[in-house]
Amino acid sequence: MAALEKVLEQIDTNQDQALARLFQLLAIKSVSTDADYATECARAGQFLVDQLQELGFEASLRPTPGHPVVVGKAKASRPDVPHVLFYGHYDVQPADPLELWETPPFEPRLTELDPGHKIIVARGATDDKGQLMTFVEACRAFKETGEFPCHITVLFEGEEESGSPSLPAFLAANKAELKADIALICDTGMWDRETPAITTMLRGLVLEEVVIKGANRDLHSGMFGGAVVNPIHVLSRIIADLHDAEGRVTLPGFYDGVTELPEDVAKQWRDLPFDEAQFLAEVGVSVPAGEKGRGVLEMIWSRPTCDVNGIIGGYTGKGSKTVLPAEASAKFSFRLVGQQKPEKVVEAFRAFVRQRLPADCKVEFLSHGASPALQLPFSSEALSRARRALQAEWGKDAVLAGSGGSIPIVGSFKQDLGMDSLMVGFSLDDDRAHSPNEKYELSSFQKGARSWARILTALAL
Amino acid sequence: MAALEKVLEQIDTNQDQALARLFQLLAIKSVSTDADYATECARAGQFLVDQLQELGFEASLRPTPGHPVVVGKAKASRPDVPHVLFYGHYDVQPADPLELWETPPFEPRLTELDPGHKIIVARGATDDKGQLMTFVEACRAFKETGEFPCHITVLFEGEEESGSPSLPAFLAANKAELKADIALICDTGMWDRETPAITTMLRGLVLEEVVIKGANRDLHSGMFGGAVVNPIHVLSRIIADLHDAEGRVTLPGFYDGVTELPEDVAKQWRDLPFDEAQFLAEVGVSVPAGEKGRGVLEMIWSRPTCDVNGIIGGYTGKGSKTVLPAEASAKFSFRLVGQQKPEKVVEAFRAFVRQRLPADCKVEFLSHGASPALQLPFSSEALSRARRALQAEWGKDAVLAGSGGSIPIVGSFKQDLGMDSLMVGFSLDDDRAHSPNEKYELSSFQKGARSWARILTALAL
Repeated sequence: MAALEKVLEQIDTNQDQALARLFQLLAIKSVSTDADYATECARAGQFLVDQLQELGFEASLRPTPGHPVVVGKAKASRPDVPHVLFYGHYDVQPADPLELWETPPFEPRLTELDPGHKIIVARGATDDKGQLMTFVEACRAFKETGEFPCHITVLFEGEEESGSPSLPAFLAANKAELKADIALICDTGMWDRETPAITTMLRGLVLEEVVIKGANRDLHSGMFGGAVVNPIHVLSRIIADLHDAEGRVTLPGFYDGVTELPEDVAKQWRDLPFDEAQFLAEVGVSVPAGEKGRGVLEMIWSRPTCDVNGIIGGYTGKGSKTVLPAEASAKFSFRLVGQQKPEKVVEAFRAFVRQRLPADCKVEFLSHGASPALQLPFSSEALSRARRALQAEWGKDAVLAGSGGSIPIVGSFKQDLGMDSLMVGFSLDDDRAHSPNEKYELSSFQKGARSWARILTALAL
Repeated sequence: MAALEKVLEQIDTNQDQALARLFQLLAIKSVSTDADYATECARAGQFLVDQLQELGFEASLRPTPGHPVVVGKAKASRPDVPHVLFYGHYDVQPADPLELWETPPFEPRLTELDPGHKIIVARGATDDKGQLMTFVEACRAFKETGEFPCHITVLFEGEEESGSPSLPAFLAANKAELKADIALICDTGMWDRETPAITTMLRGLVLEEVVIKGANRDLHSGMFGGAVVNPIHVLSRIIADLHDAEGRVTLPGFYDGVTELPEDVAKQWRDLPFDEAQFLAEVGVSVPAGEKGRGVLEMIWSRPTCDVNGIIGGYTGKGSKTVLPAEASAKFSFRLVGQQKPEKVVEAFRAFVRQRLPADCKVEFLSHGASPALQLPFSSEALSRARRALQAEWGKDAVLAGSGGSIPIVGSFKQDLGMDSLMVGFSLDDDRAHSPNEKYELSSFQKGARSWARILTALAL
């Protein structure tokens, strides 16, 4: 461990220079969504290319139809060590509304929230420049004290905040070059300021729209009501039937591939200081609405769901109109976990709808996407090593978090490059990502770099 | 019956003159909804005043904030005869689109559909000038051959096609003058060209809008789905629960006051040449959707219903949006029959909704109206006499029809003047009321006048 100790000491010794380098990057106005900032985006990319080249990476700015991608490659001297692909993004959200910033968004500064509690304030501090620089600084310390413990490829994109339009084609065109043993992603958060987290579960998503059609035109409900089928009634019955009294989704086979959490993870989540009542109170409710007997965190992170995101049919203006509508439609989303197969869910759902269709109704289905859940297996060796590394750095067990939302790059890495992703990030919930006065904890920046030093070392053991 | 025979003969003898008078009225462009035609409306009213005065009525044009009302009064010499109030309207729908008329809408003409099958073509022929003139011509024949069999008040309004805005206040201000034993209304149709009909049932209507509210704002369904209540699900459950598997409405007490049809009426309906399959096929369906075991005609004319006329919630644009909506709303209509009490239905419905409200949801109710069903009792003596009179004229039993829609004047007569209405009309389904090339059967006009002569005579016996 002598090599690691030297690396950590190097990170600590060079904190001021590291911060200066981060500030240089934060000062570049790399707003990807606004064409006026295209030159700034390229400048941010070039800054990172320069950084990587200083560290001995073979690095370049790679053109795309949009903003360029930074790719850098460095080898460890030992050939039999793992090959990691590190992902981050150098573009940022627009800074508007400017008047709400206490200081200009692209003039980074270090300040104190409380005595001794230092934060870095600037657009992109937490999303994602501060985060990606934790990895670059870890690499620098390895370089300055010896050599890289793993083979490392770095991929920094410049369009994450505008939906990554160029990335899928770039990955497809450079598969062989970018393929590694595992992806490391630094774009997520910690559980709280003292507790690290590894995001191991991202729920999948099936989006289906259903249009139920009855009569060949809107009818007068006085003249036809009672005699002719009402598509709103049919649709409502389908929606009502989709959950049982226990809050479970009733689609046959829906829970195939859904497993219970390992007991140690379940216990970890139960023991987390998570206040369900407060979480719900913040959005104006008080009772968990989903599967009976399961906690809110468990439901959001690790259980599949079905929600109707929108419904419309008949007359929806002011007052009343006695119309018997010809059609009604609804948009459904299914969040998937574990090994649930999106195509099976679609199939089961469509069969479920067809079974409830009266003789006189037709149905039309529109698919708006279907993607599986992404799970880093709890048994993954890389996960175990990362946990131990984070435990050593933070003195606390990392929370194995789930995420209700999706992170598209993780799906691309899995599907296109066949790699699992280890998502370790040091943002906090109150970092104001996408908002004025975005900040990053100085401790996240410094201990983040130390964390990557430990993780890279652990992966190579 | 010698007096009636003379009256009928008089009607037959004077057909050409009667038609000429009707054509004079049809030539007046009394479009009530268009202020440009206000003078024409007044002219049509004055024409009718003149007609009634010729027949010995005390008649005048009575001003309202809108178009004037014609009121005419005539007494029979026998004091102990019934007093009837006859209602019709002299205003018509706009004639647009003019280019679809084969001849100008206000140049009435007599033509043949098939050899010997004569029709009167003009705007207002069937709705309602042709119909109201059947009654005026019957009065004329009584006058020319003797005397009126009943005390008669005539009420012709000029705003029926624009929602009768002035009528309620006019009725309220002239209650004592207008109150009679029964109202006669000539604004409905026959069963078919050979079969007369008396409309004895108008369904009532309760209009309720329901807004279900959950979280205090729209949420991300990935972050909150499964944990926070979805108002679309709650609303769908309520809608689904409103009907049982037999198609009956499940509101407690909903069928209180609903009675089965008298067997003779039920038999009459069963024996009618009504093609359910064709009725449904015309709107693109094939299976009756309502209460199992009941016919389409029975359901539309005489059974209560519940329909959702509109529903909306969440994202309803193109594509998908993973939103967990804060609210969802729906508009409900209940058609009432018999003695169902609108206020009881409202009360039962609101309790039904509240019972299905999860702890975290709030509900808001908006009332868009509540009116009871109107039914001329099957045991009514006036009804029996009118049936016999129509049987004598047409050689067929009159169909005791229901109507799924509403005729507001009938409610006003019942509630404000305490009168039942006997609705006898001679329009046909293919008369193109409100459409280009509106027509009225010459047989409806002539036998209509004869029918009123028989009915008035029968009522006075």
